[in-house]
Amino acid sequence: MRHILIIGAGKSTGVLVDYLLNKSNEHNLHLIIADKNVESAQSLSQNHENATAIELDIFNPEERKKHIQKADIVISMLPARFHIEVAQDCVTYNKNMVTASYVSPEMESLDKEVKEKGLVFMNEIGVDPGVDHMSAMQVIDSIRNKGGKLLLFESFTGGLVAPEDDNNLWNYKFTWNPRNVVTAGQGGAAKFIQEGKYKYIPYHRLFRRTEFLDVDGYGRFEALANRNSLKYREVYGLQDVLTLYRGTMRRVGFSKAWNMFVQLGMTDDTYTIEDSEDMTYRDFVNSFLPYSPTDSVELKMRHELKIDQDDIMWLKLEELDIFNSEKKIGLKDATPAQMLQAILEDSWTLQPGEKDMIVMYHKFGYELNGEQYQIDSTMVCLGDGKLQTAMAKTVGLPVAIAALKILNKEITEPGVQIPIKESVYKPILKELEGYGIRFRESETEYLGYNKLHL
Amino acid sequence: MRHILIIGAGKSTGVLVDYLLNKSNEHNLHLIIADKNVESAQSLSQNHENATAIELDIFNPEERKKHIQKADIVISMLPARFHIEVAQDCVTYNKNMVTASYVSPEMESLDKEVKEKGLVFMNEIGVDPGVDHMSAMQVIDSIRNKGGKLLLFESFTGGLVAPEDDNNLWNYKFTWNPRNVVTAGQGGAAKFIQEGKYKYIPYHRLFRRTEFLDVDGYGRFEALANRNSLKYREVYGLQDVLTLYRGTMRRVGFSKAWNMFVQLGMTDDTYTIEDSEDMTYRDFVNSFLPYSPTDSVELKMRHELKIDQDDIMWLKLEELDIFNSEKKIGLKDATPAQMLQAILEDSWTLQPGEKDMIVMYHKFGYELNGEQYQIDSTMVCLGDGKLQTAMAKTVGLPVAIAALKILNKEITEPGVQIPIKESVYKPILKELEGYGIRFRESETEYLGYNKLHL
Repeated sequence: MRHILIIGAGKSTGVLVDYLLNKSNEHNLHLIIADKNVESAQSLSQNHENATAIELDIFNPEERKKHIQKADIVISMLPARFHIEVAQDCVTYNKNMVTASYVSPEMESLDKEVKEKGLVFMNEIGVDPGVDHMSAMQVIDSIRNKGGKLLLFESFTGGLVAPEDDNNLWNYKFTWNPRNVVTAGQGGAAKFIQEGKYKYIPYHRLFRRTEFLDVDGYGRFEALANRNSLKYREVYGLQDVLTLYRGTMRRVGFSKAWNMFVQLGMTDDTYTIEDSEDMTYRDFVNSFLPYSPTDSVELKMRHELKIDQDDIMWLKLEELDIFNSEKKIGLKDATPAQMLQAILEDSWTLQPGEKDMIVMYHKFGYELNGEQYQIDSTMVCLGDGKLQTAMAKTVGLPVAIAALKILNKEITEPGVQIPIKESVYKPILKELEGYGIRFRESETEYLGYNKLHL
Repeated sequence: MRHILIIGAGKSTGVLVDYLLNKSNEHNLHLIIADKNVESAQSLSQNHENATAIELDIFNPEERKKHIQKADIVISMLPARFHIEVAQDCVTYNKNMVTASYVSPEMESLDKEVKEKGLVFMNEIGVDPGVDHMSAMQVIDSIRNKGGKLLLFESFTGGLVAPEDDNNLWNYKFTWNPRNVVTAGQGGAAKFIQEGKYKYIPYHRLFRRTEFLDVDGYGRFEALANRNSLKYREVYGLQDVLTLYRGTMRRVGFSKAWNMFVQLGMTDDTYTIEDSEDMTYRDFVNSFLPYSPTDSVELKMRHELKIDQDDIMWLKLEELDIFNSEKKIGLKDATPAQMLQAILEDSWTLQPGEKDMIVMYHKFGYELNGEQYQIDSTMVCLGDGKLQTAMAKTVGLPVAIAALKILNKEITEPGVQIPIKESVYKPILKELEGYGIRFRESETEYLGYNKLHL
């Protein structure tokens, strides 16, 4: 038997474990599922004969080293900042490693040693980053292989609620870490390049500078810019591209409504509100509005945000029960963002049986023999309403597939890497298709950007 | 002769030196004016028999200690972060010290030793902080002395151009560090309390939440909130006050126009613009607007900011020549804020002979014998169009007066302190009146806040 050590029994680990257990007899696999909380590990191991659940505190070096030493490959599903402890041991004991996280500078710094030892450290092989890298590079390489020159690359991903459970005015529910949703876009202006012009959008304008995207069979979406699109120039080898833009997808109207919270300052995560524990939803709203001894919070809100009587934005606010003067938020020393999150979780928490959805949209503009072309590529993955959420599938499956292929020496090129090489992405994308994670490509006219008729 | 060591020959030091030289014979004073740049020190010493200019690098501990040891009192006009080196030596050699800067935690930590040695370390005795502290505490103490209970304290200061030279559409010129003006209000939400309700304004709304203030003889001003008003509760002993608000004064309309820059992201100082060195004013503007192959920067700007054809805001932009496609900014690796500053300095630099103005406005609401009252107190100080700018006078004079009074043992209470004690502020304010820095008080009806008739 070959031992796969899986550290961290989080949400996406279930799908990953299922995949590997299904293949365990055929491929002689035994999974060691390790978590600080042994019950989490046990619930994933399902008493399967080829799985063992263990308790593991990764900050106990002896325990950690012992288990890594015994493994044939290590999958770290820990939060990104904890990978490095595991990675250093993997170097020491000559173990291959797989993570779904962005390559940190510390991880990157292991590259030389990893290569010297002939090890494969595969990172960014979840959904975003992961499936986006693979599906984008497949098209980019195919364009290059036929002699095309890339002019434009845009890429959008959204974690949303599936259409059948999309039943609130915001067309949104939390399908992953709500905290990341509330603070999304913060920490600096969004940067990208359009037709050779660098563009910058400050956080407080981000949610009003969206563009529309249509996905066949799923209707219209909108996209807002991610923080730094420019780093993908180097990653994908797109140094000469005129347009490079990465963004987040939402249903149409979400961003304009979300902007109300941004404008009021409710998404700020940098300071704590006085007496936050005792505040009602209404008090929270009022703290961002001018004082008045007589006017209602509602009217002050309408005035501050210029919301007309017949504007659907107002119903979106009401739907969240945000003016309730009795419900307390109940968080001590909380930031505005934490308090807003608590209010939103009341309304936006995915209920048992409700399905999520991952949507991805790439645009590739290129020149070939003096002509300009564009390929659009889209993917929609739906959750099953239980453990196999779209998020868990699109993260867990590529991690599992990559781990098995590395173990089986189908992926062998050494180094600290991300899945942008054909030898890596091609077999993985092919296998993902069998699980319904499938990209649909269509050719469309290349218009550059907004080239309107005057 | 008693030796006064003045370290740092900056803009406000001239007024300070003049004051002390005028008193030097009467009070047996000899000034040692020290600066890294000895020419700056020499130009201030004016070859006066009671002044000596010296070259001093404060990071040379031997030199620094030598001069501090020989002094009878030390005035540090250095940038705030450099005071601590001087302060530690002053403790060692038992010297009193005066600065116009905020008390840093390091300075504060010397308090015990300073008290034990019976030394006076007077800080925050410029204009803001300084004159604001003294003038506010004088009224607060007088209200308390007659048995009144403070309900409201608001305080506003503005550094502006004097009315006779106020000749641009913005009614603004740079009268102090332009960098601080461009980045003013950044670094977190503004916090204050109004009628017992905590209020928070995010940076991107700050310039649209102004209020109006009228100053007799000077017309109407507007005020926007400073970052943290709440810290003055403790400083002034106003723990129970219902309203506490500190702000910055501008001429009416400035903030709404400035908000255009804020909205576009032009005041951001946290990242650098690609190819900033080669950008024209127009390119700079364009980098914050959506790409278009056909539409003009002007129309995109009007659309993005919703500026109507007949809106004065547009003329304010044009006045800055901000759409010029030939003028280059010429700053390498510059932040948006640095680039905006360069554009504004073209238009807003105070010309030789032009006068500046400092305006201060305090409001004090209080209860006495069951009745509510309000006192408003205002001060306007005009520069002379030469070295005696309003800024230099309101910073340099209180520093000089305090230093002489400490030297003459008229101010003796030891400790690291700010001028909020009657024994300190009373004689200083009295003397400032002789230099035209005079507060006018008026009683007005206490309305609480915005108490309108329904």
